[in-house]
Amino acid sequence: MDSVANQACIVGIGHTEYSRDSGRSEMTLACEAIGAAIADAGLTPADIDGITKYTMDNNDPIDIARNLGIPELRYAAEVNYGGGGGPVGTIALGAMAVATGQAKAVVAFRAMNERSGRGTPRFGQAGTAPGASGVASYFSPYGLFSPAQMVALSARRHMHLYGTESRHFGEIAVTCRHHANMNPNAMMHGRPMSIEDHQASRMIAAPLRLLDCCLETDGGAAVVITRADRARDLRHPRVFIAGAGIGAGHWNYRSMVKDMDSPVSESTVIAKHLFRDAGIKHSDIDVLFIYDHFTPLVMMAIEDFGFCKRGEGKDFVSNGRLRWPDGELPMNTSGGNLSEGYMHGMQNVIEAVRQLRGVARCQVKDARHAFVSAGNAVPTSAMILRNEL
Amino acid sequence: MDSVANQACIVGIGHTEYSRDSGRSEMTLACEAIGAAIADAGLTPADIDGITKYTMDNNDPIDIARNLGIPELRYAAEVNYGGGGGPVGTIALGAMAVATGQAKAVVAFRAMNERSGRGTPRFGQAGTAPGASGVASYFSPYGLFSPAQMVALSARRHMHLYGTESRHFGEIAVTCRHHANMNPNAMMHGRPMSIEDHQASRMIAAPLRLLDCCLETDGGAAVVITRADRARDLRHPRVFIAGAGIGAGHWNYRSMVKDMDSPVSESTVIAKHLFRDAGIKHSDIDVLFIYDHFTPLVMMAIEDFGFCKRGEGKDFVSNGRLRWPDGELPMNTSGGNLSEGYMHGMQNVIEAVRQLRGVARCQVKDARHAFVSAGNAVPTSAMILRNEL
Repeated sequence: MDSVANQACIVGIGHTEYSRDSGRSEMTLACEAIGAAIADAGLTPADIDGITKYTMDNNDPIDIARNLGIPELRYAAEVNYGGGGGPVGTIALGAMAVATGQAKAVVAFRAMNERSGRGTPRFGQAGTAPGASGVASYFSPYGLFSPAQMVALSARRHMHLYGTESRHFGEIAVTCRHHANMNPNAMMHGRPMSIEDHQASRMIAAPLRLLDCCLETDGGAAVVITRADRARDLRHPRVFIAGAGIGAGHWNYRSMVKDMDSPVSESTVIAKHLFRDAGIKHSDIDVLFIYDHFTPLVMMAIEDFGFCKRGEGKDFVSNGRLRWPDGELPMNTSGGNLSEGYMHGMQNVIEAVRQLRGVARCQVKDARHAFVSAGNAVPTSAMILRNEL
Repeated sequence: MDSVANQACIVGIGHTEYSRDSGRSEMTLACEAIGAAIADAGLTPADIDGITKYTMDNNDPIDIARNLGIPELRYAAEVNYGGGGGPVGTIALGAMAVATGQAKAVVAFRAMNERSGRGTPRFGQAGTAPGASGVASYFSPYGLFSPAQMVALSARRHMHLYGTESRHFGEIAVTCRHHANMNPNAMMHGRPMSIEDHQASRMIAAPLRLLDCCLETDGGAAVVITRADRARDLRHPRVFIAGAGIGAGHWNYRSMVKDMDSPVSESTVIAKHLFRDAGIKHSDIDVLFIYDHFTPLVMMAIEDFGFCKRGEGKDFVSNGRLRWPDGELPMNTSGGNLSEGYMHGMQNVIEAVRQLRGVARCQVKDARHAFVSAGNAVPTSAMILRNEL
């Protein structure tokens, strides 16, 4: 098998409500989301024999299996690097398992009380450990504690090199909010945002404003993956995993400030394999899902994945080009991490499946191919989904 | 692809010395072991594009890639459950990746200062957290803190049901020590052990004696995996991954005491798929590698994987049947976790490869198939390796 492309399909999607306080355990959220995804596929827990997870997810697959009534697990695997690995890596690990017969039906999920509870300790965050450890020891003494502070450095560099302005970053936030306002499950539904709102929002770590930063959310989100031939007999039109990769090149969070003079980034490492595996070009992508933790990194991801040249991101995201229904390439059509809910990117996967089933609220007409990225600035992952020919 | 069987090969093996105090960082140990495995395969770091790890290993693949000069990673994945997942799961994840074209050459490794340093916090161990959390909250109040204490309950049950005696467990320890004494890299080389020594060793958690428990070790161990067709051009005879699985059934560490009346265990879940995938019978296995954390669990694994019936383990391990050169089915021929070094099972994988290359010190004549298990009592994994037809 030269590639995992088109060997596996996403056959079920499920999620909880997204909130600031779920009022229940992370395990309950996981089981609700996974149970919903299994039911959506027309399967039962007894049909599931694999579970893949974000390493940092607190829920243990064995406990999930017991709680849901999954009798035997034949496969359990994890992917690290949080939002840079999880939302695509878990699905790639599922696709590989069903493609090679290691499992018949794999659940990939993310569930957390990130907002109300202690959430998930995350890289570099102050307060998660009694003192910085590991690589954080090298930059914490300089006052670099939070992800927003780290991203601010790269954002400033992008502005310096390419003339990018805060309002260009704002375009991304406004786009996601626009889509969230058409999605009743979005945390920011009913709260419209203009570019002026963005510009007026308070500074978090210059040049990052409050509205450049993603939400923190309680909730759960899950998908079910089977082999393509099995998917044919299930409930929904097939959504193929046309290509998926996890990668790290010369730049990632170890560098802090993006080396924008280098022609190779972690994202370009992935992109070159991904489009080859899927057998399509960038211009074939109908709907875009870029992991939206911080708006400047969304712009850089668009550049690094090759949707435009480096430095051209500011034009690419402007003039409503990413906004449904009139934009050329609608992005994060359910609101994304910025405005739907921070399910660590998994909610973007779910919306990509809806688009390719033709049942999204902001439905892109005749959507055939969706591009879904995980977070950059850590090692990243990305995939291309497509629907039936 | 109906199965990953025979799609991938282990093409390189490498390890450090095993010691009580390595005198260097876990990252250094990882890089030394991985570098040795890459060189053993006749490859260079630039040929490697994937790394799989035990979730609990402290070394980050990105850092390893930078330190070794691996320019681009296309694949990074993890397997949880410590010794129950790692020594086979990391290799299965590598096999799946090369079989599906997600990577060309994957390193699987384990490196730690388990003995001298703080080591790796492990499940249920006292002192790793300020108070028991998660599932440990349910049994810590009863005084169940350490793995040895937990295993003692199952060992006692086995003795009660089947008439197993401490000296039967001792046979396993003596077997591993016998093999370690022919392996200069073994920590227990030069320290022979008799069954009387075993019986005289101090009690740790009745019925477990000191010599029923594995070592704690500083060191690193690694293997390199490529697709089978690529392996043909490399330095050593090919060692095929004929089948590999990770699994969890009705019994695992969530239960504490093994339900020995149940016909299905986590190991039987794996075994039924494994032998089918490999297309062989138990009697085709020439050399056995059973994860040897605690001797009673080795006996139960032999039973649950189907090498004998439940309760027959005491006879299966007796009369030198597992001892090279005269035993019918030599086990852990380099000394295992019990007497070579506790590399969390990865050292058993390396020795299995040596056996199938025909270069082991305790070489089983005409060894064709090796069975390698990970630890039971957590979800377990197991694989069958074979050499060229």
